[in-house]
Amino acid sequence: MRKILVIGSGKSTAYLLKYLLDKSVSENLYITVGDLNLDQAKSLIGSHKNAKALLLDVFDSPSRTLAIKDADIVISMLPARFHIEVAKDCITYKKHMVTASYVSPEMQHLDHDAKANNLVLMNEIGVDPGIDHMSAMQVLDRIRDKGGKIILFESFTGGLVAPESDNNLWNYKFTWNPRNVVVAGQGGAAKFLQEGAYKYIPYNRLFRRTEFLEIPNFGRFEVYANRDSLKYQSVYGLDHVKTLYRGTMRRVGFSRAWHIFATLGMTDDSYTIDDSENMSYRDFVNAFLPYSPTDSVELKLRHQLKIDQDDMVWDKLIELDIFNPNKPVELKKATPAQILQKILMDSWTLSKTDKDMIVMYHKFGYELHGKQHQIDANMVVLGEDQTYTAMAKTVGLPVAIATLAILNGKIKTPGVQIPITKEVYNPILKELENYGIRFQEKEVPYLGYNPLNI
Amino acid sequence: MRKILVIGSGKSTAYLLKYLLDKSVSENLYITVGDLNLDQAKSLIGSHKNAKALLLDVFDSPSRTLAIKDADIVISMLPARFHIEVAKDCITYKKHMVTASYVSPEMQHLDHDAKANNLVLMNEIGVDPGIDHMSAMQVLDRIRDKGGKIILFESFTGGLVAPESDNNLWNYKFTWNPRNVVVAGQGGAAKFLQEGAYKYIPYNRLFRRTEFLEIPNFGRFEVYANRDSLKYQSVYGLDHVKTLYRGTMRRVGFSRAWHIFATLGMTDDSYTIDDSENMSYRDFVNAFLPYSPTDSVELKLRHQLKIDQDDMVWDKLIELDIFNPNKPVELKKATPAQILQKILMDSWTLSKTDKDMIVMYHKFGYELHGKQHQIDANMVVLGEDQTYTAMAKTVGLPVAIATLAILNGKIKTPGVQIPITKEVYNPILKELENYGIRFQEKEVPYLGYNPLNI
Repeated sequence: MRKILVIGSGKSTAYLLKYLLDKSVSENLYITVGDLNLDQAKSLIGSHKNAKALLLDVFDSPSRTLAIKDADIVISMLPARFHIEVAKDCITYKKHMVTASYVSPEMQHLDHDAKANNLVLMNEIGVDPGIDHMSAMQVLDRIRDKGGKIILFESFTGGLVAPESDNNLWNYKFTWNPRNVVVAGQGGAAKFLQEGAYKYIPYNRLFRRTEFLEIPNFGRFEVYANRDSLKYQSVYGLDHVKTLYRGTMRRVGFSRAWHIFATLGMTDDSYTIDDSENMSYRDFVNAFLPYSPTDSVELKLRHQLKIDQDDMVWDKLIELDIFNPNKPVELKKATPAQILQKILMDSWTLSKTDKDMIVMYHKFGYELHGKQHQIDANMVVLGEDQTYTAMAKTVGLPVAIATLAILNGKIKTPGVQIPITKEVYNPILKELENYGIRFQEKEVPYLGYNPLNI
Repeated sequence: MRKILVIGSGKSTAYLLKYLLDKSVSENLYITVGDLNLDQAKSLIGSHKNAKALLLDVFDSPSRTLAIKDADIVISMLPARFHIEVAKDCITYKKHMVTASYVSPEMQHLDHDAKANNLVLMNEIGVDPGIDHMSAMQVLDRIRDKGGKIILFESFTGGLVAPESDNNLWNYKFTWNPRNVVVAGQGGAAKFLQEGAYKYIPYNRLFRRTEFLEIPNFGRFEVYANRDSLKYQSVYGLDHVKTLYRGTMRRVGFSRAWHIFATLGMTDDSYTIDDSENMSYRDFVNAFLPYSPTDSVELKLRHQLKIDQDDMVWDKLIELDIFNPNKPVELKKATPAQILQKILMDSWTLSKTDKDMIVMYHKFGYELHGKQHQIDANMVVLGEDQTYTAMAKTVGLPVAIATLAILNGKIKTPGVQIPITKEVYNPILKELENYGIRFQEKEVPYLGYNPLNI
């Protein structure tokens, strides 16, 4: 039996474990799921004979090394900052390792040791990062293999609510870590390339510089820029590309309304509000508006942000009940972002029957034999329920498939890797198609941002 | 002879040295001016028999300690971060010390040692901080001494250009460190108290939440909030005040135009612009606007910020020549703030005959015998030329006067001090009046922010 150690049994592991358990007999696998929460680990593997749950504290070095020593390959589904100790043990005991997280500088440091020991440390193999890398590189390589020159690459991902559960005015619910949604886009200007020119968008303009996209059968979406669209420029081989833009997808209208929170200062996570535990939702809003003994909080907000009486954005605010003087914030020494998150969780928490959705959209512009072409590719994955979510599926399946491919020697290039080579993305994307994760591609006229070539 | 060591002979020391030299015979003073730039030190003292210039590198410990050992009192006019080594030597060799800078945590640490050695380490005794502390505390103490209860305190300071030299559309020139002007207000929300409620203004709204002030004979000014209006709340004894607001003064219209730079992201000092050395001013502006093959930078800016065709704010931008495609930025790896500073210095640098101006405005609201009152106090100081500036006068004179008062035993409370006690502010404010630095006070009806008491 080949032994797989899965560390962590949180939200994104349901599909991962289901895939491995389904393959465990034919592939001769034995899966150990280690977690501090033993019941959670047990509930995901049930009574499967090829699996067991293990009470595991990754900070307890002896029990961690014991578990790793006993495995043939290790999957870490812990929060990213906890991977490194696991990775070091994997080097020591010569085990391959797979994570869905971004490569940290500490992880990158292990590249030499991993290569020296012929070990694969595969990272960024979830959905974003993960499926975005693989699906982009597959098309980019195909274009380049036939002699095309890439001139534009744009890539957008969104974690949203499925259309059947989409029943609020924001067309949005929290399908992942709410805090990340509230503070998204902060920490510096967004940077990207458009027709050869570097462009910068400060946070206060980010949600007013959106662009629209359409996915057949799923309607319109909008996109705001990610902080660093150029992060993978060299990695993807796009050093001479003219347009490079990565963004986050929302339903149309979300960003224009979110801009109100960003502008008022409600998304700030860098300081605490005085006496926050005794505030109402209305008091919270009022803290960002000038004092008046008579004017209403509503009118002050409309006036500050110049929101017309008949602007539909207002209904989105009302739906969140942010002007309620009787709903208490209750959080002590809370930052604006923490208070806003609480208010939003009242309205945007998934109900038991709600389903989520992952959308991804790539645009590839290229020149071939003197002509300009464009390929658009999109992917939509719908969740099945609150355990087998689209997020768990798109994060967990690539991890599981990669793990098996490494065990079976199909992925074997050693070192600290991300899934950008044919060896990796071809078998994984092929297998993902069997689970309904596939891209719809179409050739469209190349327009770029300068269609008339002026 | 009492020996005074002045370390640093930069911009703000002209008046300081003039005051001490003028008093040197009657007060039996000998002044040593230490600076890395010996010529600069020499030029300020001329051939005065009671003074000498000394080549001094504060980072050269032996020569620094030698100079300090030889003095009776030390004035440090270095940038704030360089004071601490001087202060430690002053403790070691039992010398008093005076600076115009904010008390750093390291400086505060010396409080115990200063008291144990009966030494005065006087700080924050320039203009802001300095004259603001003294003039505010004098009125606050007077109101409290007669039984009044303070309910409102607002305080505003501005370093501006004198009316006779005020000849651009911004009514502004750089009279002090330009970098501080460009990045002013960044680093967190502005916080203050209005009628008992905490209020927060994020950076992107700071320059749109101004208030107006009038100074007789000098016309209208506007004020934007300082980052932390509550910094001196306890120090001033204002723990139960309802309104506490500190701000920066500009001429009316400055902030609304500056808001354009802040909104576009041009004041950001946290990242560098790619290829900045090859940009024109126009390219710099365009980096913050969407790409277009045809639309002009001007129209894109007007559209993004919704600036009407007939809005006078546009003339302010034109005056700075920011749309010029032929003026090169030239700075390598420059931040947006550094590039903006360069553009502004083309227009806002003082000419040889220009004079500066310091304005300060306090409002004191209080209750006495069941009635509400208000005192407004303002100060205007005009520069004489480019050496004897209003800034040098208002920073340097209080430092010089305090130094002499310490030498003469009039200020003697030991420890790390700021000028908020009668012992300090009464003699200094009195002496400042002899040099034309005086506040105009008037009783006005108390209005506060809730005049009808609703």
